[in-house]
Amino acid sequence: MPVSIYDIAIPTFHKQLASLEAVLDKAAEQAAAKKIDFAVYLGSRLYPDMFNLTRQVQLATDFAKAAPARLAGLDVPSFPDVETTLPELKARIAKIQTLLAAYKPEQFVGAETRELTLKVGGQEVTMSGLEYLLHVAFPNFYFHCTTAYDILRHNGIEIGKRDFVPRR
Amino acid sequence: MPVSIYDIAIPTFHKQLASLEAVLDKAAEQAAAKKIDFAVYLGSRLYPDMFNLTRQVQLATDFAKAAPARLAGLDVPSFPDVETTLPELKARIAKIQTLLAAYKPEQFVGAETRELTLKVGGQEVTMSGLEYLLHVAFPNFYFHCTTAYDILRHNGIEIGKRDFVPRR
Repeated sequence: MPVSIYDIAIPTFHKQLASLEAVLDKAAEQAAAKKIDFAVYLGSRLYPDMFNLTRQVQLATDFAKAAPARLAGLDVPSFPDVETTLPELKARIAKIQTLLAAYKPEQFVGAETRELTLKVGGQEVTMSGLEYLLHVAFPNFYFHCTTAYDILRHNGIEIGKRDFVPRR
Repeated sequence: MPVSIYDIAIPTFHKQLASLEAVLDKAAEQAAAKKIDFAVYLGSRLYPDMFNLTRQVQLATDFAKAAPARLAGLDVPSFPDVETTLPELKARIAKIQTLLAAYKPEQFVGAETRELTLKVGGQEVTMSGLEYLLHVAFPNFYFHCTTAYDILRHNGIEIGKRDFVPRR
């Protein structure tokens, strides 16, 4: 039984966004217990010219939003980057989860070999749907999910890899 | 043309390990230019009870070594965690790249649905090969690759996401 691109893409984005949200919730609880404004964490970054936590979450959701749309041949929905609070970021994650849940496997038939042209670093690049998913969307998506986790961990939030990769 | 598990697993591990090695090389050059012993970076971590850079690289390679072996129904080769220098870590990466290059697609036929039992957090868990690859091996692998990058970035090494996800 060979694998469809739907089976590769949709559960991956769905599960990892759920973990990201759970990690944010856990962090918010710990911040509240210590009476630290969660905005401090949302504005934290690992180096002055890296993105802060808010932006890491926005970027993680962007890849989870763009990849399935591109693979299904749809326009990528545009979400303005206006979130400044945890409830707003959670609403953004929830919106992407709703989009993910609405996709049907048949929308992705042939997507693995269909060529996509996209701008990478200001340059147009053409690649197959599978290359795009595995070698552009996934590494970028995991990069931002992990860096969000690393920012929280670096700031003393007590989370472990079991929060990042829950027992399924 | 549906996707084979070989096509999902092998190029992903191969490409991301190559990026990890390139990032380490770039960091070593910058450390040398600043006359900072690279051992300082290898011992760095984002929080006292997180793993240091050396261990992040060892763990990233462990997932790239274990996942294809398990999927192909082979014993997972055991590499002792003895590396303490960059050349030793690069040799470990090179050994995994050689293993990855030796796999043949036909070794993975049926691997997506074949059940695997593995210890996760001290508990035996059974799942399909595809679930294991996508929802255990990939998130763990990307977690350690990203955290290695984040440790270097946090220590002022000048690298960018283009180093983590090179233009393919």
